[in-house]
This record gives sequence, C-alpha cells and structure tokens, in this order.
Amino acid sequence: MTTGSASGRAAPDPATSGLEGIVAARTPLSEVDGLKGILTISGYDIEEIAAQISLEEAAYLLWHGKLPTRSELDEQNRRLVGYRRLPEETRMAVQAAAKKMEPMDALRFAVASLTVDDPAPGDNSHDINHQRAEMIVARVPIIVGMYQRLRSGGQVVEPRADLGIAANLLFQMTGQEPSDAQVRGLETYLVTVTDHGMNASTFTCRVIASTASDMVSAVVGGIGALKGPLHGGAPGPALDMIEEIGTADRADSWIRDAVQHGKRIMGFGHRIYKVRDPRAEVLYKAAWLLAEETGEQSSLDLAKEVERVAVQVLLDEKPGRNLNTNVEFYTALLLRDVGLTPDLFSPCFAIGRTVGWTAHIIEQQDSGRLIRPQSEYNGERGLKFVPIDKR
Amino acid sequence: MTTGSASGRAAPDPATSGLEGIVAARTPLSEVDGLKGILTISGYDIEEIAAQISLEEAAYLLWHGKLPTRSELDEQNRRLVGYRRLPEETRMAVQAAAKKMEPMDALRFAVASLTVDDPAPGDNSHDINHQRAEMIVARVPIIVGMYQRLRSGGQVVEPRADLGIAANLLFQMTGQEPSDAQVRGLETYLVTVTDHGMNASTFTCRVIASTASDMVSAVVGGIGALKGPLHGGAPGPALDMIEEIGTADRADSWIRDAVQHGKRIMGFGHRIYKVRDPRAEVLYKAAWLLAEETGEQSSLDLAKEVERVAVQVLLDEKPGRNLNTNVEFYTALLLRDVGLTPDLFSPCFAIGRTVGWTAHIIEQQDSGRLIRPQSEYNGERGLKFVPIDKR
Repeated sequence: MTTGSASGRAAPDPATSGLEGIVAARTPLSEVDGLKGILTISGYDIEEIAAQISLEEAAYLLWHGKLPTRSELDEQNRRLVGYRRLPEETRMAVQAAAKKMEPMDALRFAVASLTVDDPAPGDNSHDINHQRAEMIVARVPIIVGMYQRLRSGGQVVEPRADLGIAANLLFQMTGQEPSDAQVRGLETYLVTVTDHGMNASTFTCRVIASTASDMVSAVVGGIGALKGPLHGGAPGPALDMIEEIGTADRADSWIRDAVQHGKRIMGFGHRIYKVRDPRAEVLYKAAWLLAEETGEQSSLDLAKEVERVAVQVLLDEKPGRNLNTNVEFYTALLLRDVGLTPDLFSPCFAIGRTVGWTAHIIEQQDSGRLIRPQSEYNGERGLKFVPIDKR
Repeated sequence: MTTGSASGRAAPDPATSGLEGIVAARTPLSEVDGLKGILTISGYDIEEIAAQISLEEAAYLLWHGKLPTRSELDEQNRRLVGYRRLPEETRMAVQAAAKKMEPMDALRFAVASLTVDDPAPGDNSHDINHQRAEMIVARVPIIVGMYQRLRSGGQVVEPRADLGIAANLLFQMTGQEPSDAQVRGLETYLVTVTDHGMNASTFTCRVIASTASDMVSAVVGGIGALKGPLHGGAPGPALDMIEEIGTADRADSWIRDAVQHGKRIMGFGHRIYKVRDPRAEVLYKAAWLLAEETGEQSSLDLAKEVERVAVQVLLDEKPGRNLNTNVEFYTALLLRDVGLTPDLFSPCFAIGRTVGWTAHIIEQQDSGRLIRPQSEYNGERGLKFVPIDKR
C-alpha cells in the first residue's frame, strides 16, 4: 500500500523524479488501473478472487499463471509445509530479534539468513528459483509467528502441518486455533496484497534480482522498502483517527478541522488510484463478514461513516485531488478484528507481498537485464587535490 | 563495478528495459563520464585523489562535499572508532555466519541486525542520518574482518583504535599489522570504489530510502544488489584467466581463441565506459607501487601485456564494441597482492561502496520523493473465478 496522506504529495524536489510513468517492466503478473479502480492479478479482478482463494492458491496463480487444480495445490502445499522448519541460524536470529527489535527489523534480519540452506547457490534458473520462492513464502510467516509468540512472552509454538499459511500464522502467534472467520479475514487480506504493479518494494526486488544476485537478497531488499511509511503505510494512524472521532456525528467537524489545519487524513489518497482503491472494497467486505460472526459491527459502521464523510470533506477542501479511500483504511479495521496489533500489520503485508515479490524475481531473472538508470551530476569538476595540512 | 563480459550484452528482452538513459537522480556526489573516461567524486577526478586520501577522508568528502581539515578528520575518526564495537546481535550473527555462509551472505545477514541500537528509529533527518552513516561505515569493515578471522579458524581479533579502517581491516583478518604498502594498496582500492553514479546497488539504496525506510534497510538492499555478478562482478575469473595464460607470448592466441569460441573475456567491457575505465589506471598504479615494495612485479607485467593484447584482439574481433579494460581487471591483481582471497573482493567492494551508499541515502531522504515506476501489463483481464473442484 502506498501511503495515503490527504495533505498530498511532497513538493517536486531536486534530487529525484520518482520515475513516475517510466515503464520498468512488462509483466503478466498484475495490473493496476488507477483510473478505473481495477486491480488485476494474473487475469483475475481482485474482487473476483480475494475472498475465494487461499494465499497458497494465490501463490500458485502468480507463479504458474493459472489457478491450481486440487492435486496441483495439494502437491504444492506439501512442499510448502516441508519448508516450514527454519534453519538454526534463522531461529537464532528470531530469538535474538524478539528481545530487542521492532517487527520489520526482526523480519529483515531473520529473512537475511535464509540463503544458509540454499539448494544451488548461484543458479538462478527458473526451476531452482521456483523452489526458492516456495521456501521463502513458507518461511516468512513462520518467522513472523515465532517472533510474535516470543515477543509476547510465550513459548515457541511449532507449526501444524494440517493448517494453511494464514491459520498456522494465527495459531503460532497465539497457541490457539483461530476461528474460520478469523482465518478467512486474514486470508482475504493476504491475497489482496499479493501483488500490485511496480510498487517500490517489488521494484526493489527486481533491481536486486537484475544483478543476478539471489532471491533471498532481493526479498530482504523488498522488506526494507516495505518498511518505509511512504510504501508500507501506517494503518495504525487510520485506526487511531477512527477511535479519536469516536462517534459518527463528530466525523464531519473532526475531519474538516484536521484538513484545514494541514493534517494528514490517513487512509485516503494514492499515487496511482484516482478513484476508490478496489482493495478497500474487498477488505471492507471481509471486515463485515468477520464482524457479522463476532457481532461487533458498530466500529465498522463508524468506519464506513468516517469514510463517507472524509471523502466528501476532501472533495470540498481539496477539489480536483481525487483523494479516495485507499487500502490502508480497511486493512486497519480488518486486521485489528482478526486480532492483530498495529505493529504486526506491516509484517502481515510482507507475508502477502512475498508471493508477488518472488514471482517478479523469477520473471526478472528469466528474462530481464541489469536495471541501471543514470544520474545527472550537478557538482563541480576538476578540483585540485590539496594535502590535508594545507586545507 | 559493472561486469565486464566481452561476449557482450544480453539480447534485448521482453521483461525489462534496464532503464538505460533514464535519469533517476540529480546529485553532486559523483559523475561517470563514460565517453571521456572520467570519474568525478564530489568535484575531484578519481585519479587526482585515489592514491592520496584515506577511506575516512573520502567518506568526509562524500558526506560533507569537501575534504576535511586535520581537526575535522580527527573528530570524525574518533566517532568512527567509537562505533566499532558491534552490538551483541551482530556479533552473534557473524559468529553463526562464519560457520556456514559465504561472505556476501554473511555480510547481508550481519548488517541486517544494525538497527538494534539505532539512536532514533523513524527519524530520518539529516543529522541523525549522518550519525547512522558513520555507524554503518565504521561497522561494515569490522563485520568483514571478524567474519574472515573466524572463518579461517582464528580467534576474534579486537579492533585497534590507532589503525584506520583499511589497516584495521587487514589487522583483524590476520592478527598481524599490515605493511604500509598493503594498507595503501587496499585504501586506494576502497577510495576508488566509494561511488560510481547511479549503479544498481546505489539505485537500490535510493529506492528503499525513498519509501522513508531506514538507512540500514537501504544498505542491506545495496549489499544484496552488489552480490550479483552483473554488478559486483567476478574479479576472480579475471585472475584465473591471467594465470591460465601464464606467459606473455601465449596471450594473443589464448584470447583470440577464447573470443572466437564465444567465451567471455573477464575484465573488459562496461555498460557505461566506452573508453578505458579510469579506475583501471588508478588500480594498476596502486598494484605497481605494491609490487615495487614486494619485488613481485612479474605477474603485473604479465597482466599489463594480457591487457594490451586483449584490447587489441577485442578491437579486431568485435569492432565498434569499445571493449576496454574495466575496474575488475586490476582489482583482482591489486587485492590479491594485498593478501585477499577472491571471495573477499566483493565484501571489500561493499566496504568502499558503503560510503557512497550512505551519502546517497542521506541525499535521497533530504530531498527525494518515493521512487515508483510503472509496469506494463501483458496478461489477460476479466477471467471468471472457477471453484477448485471444477478446474
């Protein structure tokens, strides 16, 4: 998710252009149609599949270009489960990280160890890369689950082979089997964020992969990029805002006051989407289904009203800026209702996006070449060296 | 160093354009003039400064835009020495990595832990970033030195505050104080590779930094990109070639035969330079000075002759391709003569380039905006979901 800030873009700056509109890759993996508000994942509108498939099926779709048959999925899932055992170095990193590191730092550190049992270092052929993709997609959630469990003072809960990625993640975090509705809510989120065009983290992965480096190095770079609030966003503040507003009747004055005082309205606005982010709808529906089960629909009703008011206020106060609901807004509500604290939202984003990253890395290394843009020098030339004691 | 392969570019591919000629940043940090063969580092031709300044001075130059006075340098160096003590998590990572990981994987893993004692997480202001830059430039060589020492079965050698980065690196690797000529040779190399326009690893750092993520995350991404043979190169094979040729009189037939059989001649050709890479000259001179001290000039004479013949053969066999000596060729000779094994060449490259990476990250976060190019979708749209048992 690219951050939504209703106070808008930074002023044009002297150091970078941001590469807007520059095509860095041609790909059948996903398309973001920002004008129509359509996200296509390997042929499917996100609204068509998000609530229907597991993260494992989404991974199959992005890796193979089609949804799996039952036996294809079963075979893949056996392999994924087989990768869940973390190497010793990775477990050690998670244990150390759980004491002192924030979640995204912990994830970067632990994932950075995952070359340690690589099947064929230096071989970036398609089939070996596909093995690596399965390994990484299987292990990233195990790292997050183990980290969260240790951080909250529990004993490590070993993964359960009969649970899929989403269910097992919740199980390892809490030691308790999650409800179907929680699993479905988390899974919908994970599928929704698997891929999203040439976003900054995916682009990072492709640049690293383009040097013929390895997939783990590329994914670690992706995690680093996703950590940034301008990319990975800050769904926490969207949640804070809704809670601060408190009741629907306060929404208009609160938001109008905030906008007029130049504050950012978190969860609105996107560099690509000029209409409502299609992921917002998917996540709203998932949150609604979950709330229906738990019977806690009031905060969702409030959020819906805050959304309606915010879009109207932003239209009034920032005409022509097309500041619509982005993915962050309902991410915050959905993941909270699944039972996650805000500092786990970015690691969960990483779990879903790892699927897209690995698919892009495979594609890049199958057919891409070194990505190396240029810079424009605006400094001096031909200075004469002066020894230190004469400066 | 962008790899030199005399068999030339990969065919144009369908997945990426490589962003050639696209300006991703304006910067006073460095300029690569590929037609004239000039590398400018913050105003100075690389040939003007490479053999004259320490890596610490080069860092000051890139961070502050001018060479330091004696007292400015002393103050900076006190701070750098103060950062040499590695956090416990980093030491643990190095110890684990020394047993099982290749050097670049070990470096990525250990550096990925360096947020653990960050002074102000989330604050990417100029001064805090400058502190981080000093911390990272101080610690990356300590990690490499400690790793190498442990890997070769020795006890960790603690850093010596009276030694600069280059000398201390060699000291920590071996437990012995290096000669002045070795230090000067390594230092010339490190200064030479501090920065080089918008190369793939520097670009990676800037993309990650552009999301407002942290400097460690960005540098870890840079290490991942530098690991790739299309970027970090493979100076080892250039060395192998010279050794295989063996004597000057065999150079012409060996190289001509290799080119005619479509083999890559390592150490020649560069995506940017159409003339001799200016860094080749700097490194040749440094190798020559070192050989003068050790009296082992014969392999350097052979290399010089191999270079002369290779350039001529490539001109004959690949007319119009401008395949000239690149940085790898003399990197291999110089670093070997300094006493390093080929698998340490890339980590040493990373030690030098960390200076440029950190300067670019500061610049990016001072004034850059999110770097987010686009992709062009070439897949299907609007597919209808089919439940798994009906596929």
